[in-house]
Amino acid sequence: MPPQWTFICLSLILAAISSADLRGAGHAVPLRTTPEGNLRMRGGAPFKIALFADLHFGEAAWTEWGPRQDVNSVGVMATVLEKEQPDFVVYVGDVITANNIMIKNASVYWDQAVSPARVRGIPWSSVFGNHDDAPFEWPMEWFSETGIPQLHCPATNASFSGGEECSFRDTTRLELMKSEIEQNTLSYSKDGPQNLWPSISNYVLQLSSPSNSQEAVIFMYFFDSGGGSYPEVISSAQVKWFQQKSQEVNPDSRVPEIIFWHIPSQAYEKVAPKSYVKKHCVGSIFLEDVAAQEAEMGIMKVLEQRPSVKAVFVGHNHGLDWCCPYKKLWLCFARHTGYGGYGNWSRGARILEINHQPFSLKSWIRMEDGHLHSEVLLSS
Amino acid sequence: MPPQWTFICLSLILAAISSADLRGAGHAVPLRTTPEGNLRMRGGAPFKIALFADLHFGEAAWTEWGPRQDVNSVGVMATVLEKEQPDFVVYVGDVITANNIMIKNASVYWDQAVSPARVRGIPWSSVFGNHDDAPFEWPMEWFSETGIPQLHCPATNASFSGGEECSFRDTTRLELMKSEIEQNTLSYSKDGPQNLWPSISNYVLQLSSPSNSQEAVIFMYFFDSGGGSYPEVISSAQVKWFQQKSQEVNPDSRVPEIIFWHIPSQAYEKVAPKSYVKKHCVGSIFLEDVAAQEAEMGIMKVLEQRPSVKAVFVGHNHGLDWCCPYKKLWLCFARHTGYGGYGNWSRGARILEINHQPFSLKSWIRMEDGHLHSEVLLSS
Repeated sequence: MPPQWTFICLSLILAAISSADLRGAGHAVPLRTTPEGNLRMRGGAPFKIALFADLHFGEAAWTEWGPRQDVNSVGVMATVLEKEQPDFVVYVGDVITANNIMIKNASVYWDQAVSPARVRGIPWSSVFGNHDDAPFEWPMEWFSETGIPQLHCPATNASFSGGEECSFRDTTRLELMKSEIEQNTLSYSKDGPQNLWPSISNYVLQLSSPSNSQEAVIFMYFFDSGGGSYPEVISSAQVKWFQQKSQEVNPDSRVPEIIFWHIPSQAYEKVAPKSYVKKHCVGSIFLEDVAAQEAEMGIMKVLEQRPSVKAVFVGHNHGLDWCCPYKKLWLCFARHTGYGGYGNWSRGARILEINHQPFSLKSWIRMEDGHLHSEVLLSS
Repeated sequence: MPPQWTFICLSLILAAISSADLRGAGHAVPLRTTPEGNLRMRGGAPFKIALFADLHFGEAAWTEWGPRQDVNSVGVMATVLEKEQPDFVVYVGDVITANNIMIKNASVYWDQAVSPARVRGIPWSSVFGNHDDAPFEWPMEWFSETGIPQLHCPATNASFSGGEECSFRDTTRLELMKSEIEQNTLSYSKDGPQNLWPSISNYVLQLSSPSNSQEAVIFMYFFDSGGGSYPEVISSAQVKWFQQKSQEVNPDSRVPEIIFWHIPSQAYEKVAPKSYVKKHCVGSIFLEDVAAQEAEMGIMKVLEQRPSVKAVFVGHNHGLDWCCPYKKLWLCFARHTGYGGYGNWSRGARILEINHQPFSLKSWIRMEDGHLHSEVLLSS
């Protein structure tokens, strides 16, 4: 296909993403927040969260194949949002494949990834994965006879000219997060305390009860587990931050807490089911070794010892979707949602359902073809 | 040592580098150029080139140890320049360890590395190595209890504050090269044709005869062999550029040609002496496997077939300093010059001596302690 046709096709595909976004616009769920800016449950209904993991927007961005995967990923999210009508979405990292993105502002792709939630009026929050600010990786074939393809840069529509107009520099985590927050009133993401840098997506959200905005039903903690521009680790500084913050907002551990980050900690390796012995694990794919963080700096010890922590949710491994009990909490994978990223396992999303009075935390996986599986009670 | 003492020590060390620079200022060799801007031999004397390889300025830049190595490297260069009094210096890549440099403008360290030649009035040129624009690598220990050390940024003297004043972004090859050229009238480096991007340091220099500025004695070709921000390879586009350029300036292959790049090509693996059988190789350390480029896109085939090409000179392997015959040309390593970079083999520099009428190309290695070894005739 000649380069000018590639450009026309890319434009059509981007337009398709925009129109796909609008399919669900009529179903917008009105957001309820407390005067303090916390999330709030609706009376008489559980609070439902959809976890979108490893979307990998911008994968192979210079090819015809790449942008088509982003259209497919929008389709998965639209299906899940229509079927489940969640109150909230959590983007569990690897929202984009920054190491494949040739433009300076990778937020353009990030913005496409959050659009299915946005157009439906569903609030969301996000954590970073290892691909979100990974440096551009030059394909080796671009150095052979074929050379650098004729590139088109969605940010400016300027064609390639020696790196002056197209940029191959990665967008930093801070830039990505600031862009998400500034451009979206529905985003509950935060850019975290400065002293935790280079990790960015570290924050806590409170879900308040329907009857009393002061009363917390659950606290949701978000951690940046690194990777990309820096090592895959949750640092000692992040551990201290969690200890201080949880002591401040939930000193007696009365309110349940759940945790989100992208890369499984090394504890996941310990509970991972081996050779068809699933023990008490619940899930449908057990097809990979756990690709864990590079080091353990103490976060798991703190979480294990805190009675209010119910479960940890991660992405990263596209071929794993299980929840396994670990000491007194649950360690869960989300489900690969995106058509970008490795692996061809069917796409889906883990759903969380939170009930108040009495408290319960239930989870299942909703697939792109609509069916449900792997239901598990995480508050038992 | 408390942070303020670290800062004072760093200041003293930087001052030491400056004063070390000035030791040889009285020996400045006046530069002779032709009206066309080419290098020119002095009458009645050979033209001598010192190769400074793998200086790695800025290695472990945040420690007390790191800046002391840069002082040591200045010492090696000063010794070689005093003993050899060369007419020209070639920096054979890995001038800096960008993956250890916390400031936005890594040219600050590059500038320290070229200062021993500059203060003596000796012209030079440079090619890039894999470390020169490598992205910053966060030390894992900075995520443990010790945390991020109190950093001081030589560019601005601003202390660390969440990445706003200190920058951990690498300086691009283009920025490094433009900075070298703009700030130094003695630099013969060029930033290469734009269509060879992302490789930058691709250019040819002519050395003219003393009696006739039109008459070339030798052509020196410089190639960017990649690494750091992109794969370690000499591309098909660079091969084509060499074919066109050499056809243009030396169509009948009458004038001898020599070649400089940083990472050994895969042909080096073929000729590398194995298990104490040195064959026709000349050198003093044979202590590593060749760490070759990732792919071979045709440059060696072109060089082999061109009768005027006499030798290729590379750095990269600190534990190798040999020259070996390969088909009708010589493949040579430089000698590890810097105290930065891996390995504790004694430091030195490969010297090239070019004679005109009759043409000859001789080489030897000058060590930091003054002694010479591994003399070899490369024009035979």
